[in-house]
Amino acid sequence: MIYKAHLIDTPTPDQFRIIPNGYIHVNDHGIIEGVYQTLPASLTSEPITDFGDQLLIPAFYDLHVHAPQYRNMGLALDLPLLPWLQTYTFPEESKFSDLHYAERIYRRFVHELWMQGTMRASIFGTVHIPATQLLMKLLDEAGLGAYVGLVGMNRDCPEGLTNTLEDLEEFYKQPGTERVKPIITPRFIPSCTREMLQRLGELAKKYNLPVQSHLSENRNEIRLVHKLMPEVLTYGDGYLKYGLWGQTPTLMAHCCHSRGRELRLLKKYDVIVVHCPTSNCNLGSGAAPIRRFLKKGIRVTLGTDVSGGHNASMLRVMQYTLQTSKLYQTFSLLKEPALKVSEAFYLATKSGGSFFGKCGSFEQGYEFDALVVNDAYLNAEKYTLPQRIERYIFIGDDRDIKHRFCAGKELAEPSLT
Amino acid sequence: MIYKAHLIDTPTPDQFRIIPNGYIHVNDHGIIEGVYQTLPASLTSEPITDFGDQLLIPAFYDLHVHAPQYRNMGLALDLPLLPWLQTYTFPEESKFSDLHYAERIYRRFVHELWMQGTMRASIFGTVHIPATQLLMKLLDEAGLGAYVGLVGMNRDCPEGLTNTLEDLEEFYKQPGTERVKPIITPRFIPSCTREMLQRLGELAKKYNLPVQSHLSENRNEIRLVHKLMPEVLTYGDGYLKYGLWGQTPTLMAHCCHSRGRELRLLKKYDVIVVHCPTSNCNLGSGAAPIRRFLKKGIRVTLGTDVSGGHNASMLRVMQYTLQTSKLYQTFSLLKEPALKVSEAFYLATKSGGSFFGKCGSFEQGYEFDALVVNDAYLNAEKYTLPQRIERYIFIGDDRDIKHRFCAGKELAEPSLT
Repeated sequence: MIYKAHLIDTPTPDQFRIIPNGYIHVNDHGIIEGVYQTLPASLTSEPITDFGDQLLIPAFYDLHVHAPQYRNMGLALDLPLLPWLQTYTFPEESKFSDLHYAERIYRRFVHELWMQGTMRASIFGTVHIPATQLLMKLLDEAGLGAYVGLVGMNRDCPEGLTNTLEDLEEFYKQPGTERVKPIITPRFIPSCTREMLQRLGELAKKYNLPVQSHLSENRNEIRLVHKLMPEVLTYGDGYLKYGLWGQTPTLMAHCCHSRGRELRLLKKYDVIVVHCPTSNCNLGSGAAPIRRFLKKGIRVTLGTDVSGGHNASMLRVMQYTLQTSKLYQTFSLLKEPALKVSEAFYLATKSGGSFFGKCGSFEQGYEFDALVVNDAYLNAEKYTLPQRIERYIFIGDDRDIKHRFCAGKELAEPSLT
Repeated sequence: MIYKAHLIDTPTPDQFRIIPNGYIHVNDHGIIEGVYQTLPASLTSEPITDFGDQLLIPAFYDLHVHAPQYRNMGLALDLPLLPWLQTYTFPEESKFSDLHYAERIYRRFVHELWMQGTMRASIFGTVHIPATQLLMKLLDEAGLGAYVGLVGMNRDCPEGLTNTLEDLEEFYKQPGTERVKPIITPRFIPSCTREMLQRLGELAKKYNLPVQSHLSENRNEIRLVHKLMPEVLTYGDGYLKYGLWGQTPTLMAHCCHSRGRELRLLKKYDVIVVHCPTSNCNLGSGAAPIRRFLKKGIRVTLGTDVSGGHNASMLRVMQYTLQTSKLYQTFSLLKEPALKVSEAFYLATKSGGSFFGKCGSFEQGYEFDALVVNDAYLNAEKYTLPQRIERYIFIGDDRDIKHRFCAGKELAEPSLT
C-alpha cells in the first residue's frame, strides 16, 4: 500500500522531518518499507491512496492513563494527590466490581483513545480481574495496542478495593494477545505491602513482563513513602529493592520531584519517565524538569494520566509539556532551555512508541501507526507545513483526525454498546 | 421572551447558582426581568423557548485580546515577551496597513469570538486607523460588544508601526456605537514616549474613555521600564504619572509580578487586573497570585491574550486559571488556597462583564448575554448539574455552543467574506 500526503514525523527530536506531498510505502504486514519525496520506479504501478493536502503524522502513545477513572475526567480536581485518591478516585474504581458498569465505561474509554488518535497506551485498570480482562478484550477488538495492568493494592485502601497475591498470579499468567498485553502494576508504594511488592517483582521476572507505577509525584506522597520504608534513600529505591525497577522495561509516571540519586537510578536502570504535565497542573503536584532528564540521557515519554489529567488528548499533553517547560525556567533557579515543539512531538510519538516496539516514526521497519489530519479550517490563512503542525498541536483537536491506522490497519470507530 | 433550560450562573464567586429546568424572563430591551424555578402566574401566557436538557449560562468576556495577532494564534511561542514582540508580533501587526489584509483577518477574528461564545471583549488593534475602524465596524455588524483600542506606540518599534499624537486624537474623537466603543490603549510603557503617554492620559480625560494596557508581565520588561523611567517606584506608577491609571476605568493585563506598592496602587485606584494564564504559560512570564489579589479586594477579570495566548476560548482560560492557581501553591512560599471552579467562572462572566455595564449574570436588570450549551456527549454518563458545568469548563469546547445571545439578541454566524 502507498499513501500520499504531507508526511511529518520526528526521527530525531531536534527537528521535524517534513516531506511535502510525499509517499509512504507500507507492506502487507503493516510495516513501513520507505518514505519518498519522489516515488521510485519500482513502485509506480502500485495503487496509491492520495490524502491530498492533509497531514500524515505518526499516531500518539499515551504511556500513563487510568481507564476506570474515565468517568471522572474533567471533574473533582480540587484536591492534591493523596486526599484526591481517597475522596474521588477510589470510590469510582470500586464500581468496577460490577462488570456491566465496567463494560459501559471501558467501551467509552476505548472509543476515546480511538477518537483522540492514541493508537497504543499503557493503562491502569483496577483490582478487579474480570473488568480488567474485559478492558483488554475491548482494546483488542478495537485494534488498538496496549499494555494493561491489574492494579496491585492491599494497604490503606477502601474495603473491596484490594486484591491478593493469588489474584495477581491468576491475572498475570495470561499472556494477552499480539498487541494487548499485561503489565505489572503496583499502584504505588503506599498502596502495597512489602509482600505484594515482592510478589509483583517475582511475577515480572517469571513471566518477563514490563512494569508501570507512580514515582515522586507529590511531596506529601514522598514523605509517606519515606515513613513506610525508612530504610530507602529515595522513593525509587523502594521499587528497586523489590525487582520493580528496570529488571524488565519499566515506566514511572510523574517524577516531578525526582532529583540526585533518583535520577541516577532512573538512568542506570534505563527506567522510562512518563511525564504527565496536565495532571501535574491539575493536582498542583509540581513541574518535572524534563530538560534535565533528557540531558542526563533518561528516557522520557508522555501520558495523559486521566483523570488526574482532565483530558485524553495527547495534543494537549504536548502543549502542557511545552508550557510547563517554560514555566519551569521562570520558577526554577536552574535556567534550562525550554523544550522545542519538535521535542514534545518526539516524546508523544517516537519516544512513547518505542515502548511498544518499533512504533511512532516513519522509518523503514517501523509499524505503520499513523493519523491523517485535515487541518483545512486551521489552515484557511495558508501556513507553512512547520507552522501547520505547530498550530495543530496547539489548537487542533480530535475532530481534525480523519483516518487512524494501527500496525498498518485502518481502525473503524469502536462501538459504544 | 421566556427561555427555559438548566440555568447556571455565579451571582457571587463562592458557588454556582443552579436552577434546574428554570425560566428566565427577558424584556424587549434585552434586559433580564427575573429568573424562576416556577413560572409566576403573570407570565404563564408568554411564549416560552424551551432548550430542554441544555445548559443556559452567561456569555464569556475576554478582557485582553490582540485582534491583529489572530493569524499567529498557536504559533511562535518559543521566545519570552520582548524578543517575541520583535520577532513575531510586530512584523505581523505591520501588515495591517493593508486594509484588504486587515479585513480578511479581522473577519476571522470576529467569527472566532462568536464561535467561542465571547460576546464582548476589550481588544487591542494596531497603530492603523482605517484597520482599527474596520474592526469596530465588523464587531458592530456581528452584534458583539467591545472596547477597541488604536494602539499607541512611537518608541523602539519597527518603521511603519508607529503613530503620532495627531493620529490618536483623530481616532479617539469618534464615539463608537452603542456597544462598540474606543478605549485608550498605550501598548505598554516601553513602546511610548512620555509625550505620548501624556497625550493618551489627556484624551482619556477629554473624551471620558477607559484605558487598557500591559503591566508587570515579564521580569525583563519590568527592568526595562525602570531603566526608561528611573524616577518611578513601580511600573504602575509610570501609568499613574500620566493619567492612565484609574482616572477612568482601567484594565491592566498580566500583573504576574505585581507586588507591594503596585498592589496597593491597583486597589487604591480600582484598576482591574486582566489575568492571562495561557499566555503567561506560553511565554514563560510567570503565574500571577490571583488569590492574593482577590483577598486584597483588587478586581480581577480574564483574558485570552491571543496570540501570546494560543487559544481564543475563555473555557481554556478558566481551566488555566485553576491550574496555575494550584501550581502557584506548589512553587510559592506563601500558601494561598487555590481558586475554586465557581470563582474562575465568576471571573470569566460576571467580573469580566462588569466592565461593559450590567453583564455576565442572570440577575434582574442585567443584559441578557448568554450561551446555550448542548453537553449531551459529555453527559452520556449522567452527571449532576454542578458536575456538568465543571466538565464543560474542562473538556467542552466551541462545538457544544448552540445559541449565542448578546444584549438579548441571538447572534447569527458572522460572515467570513
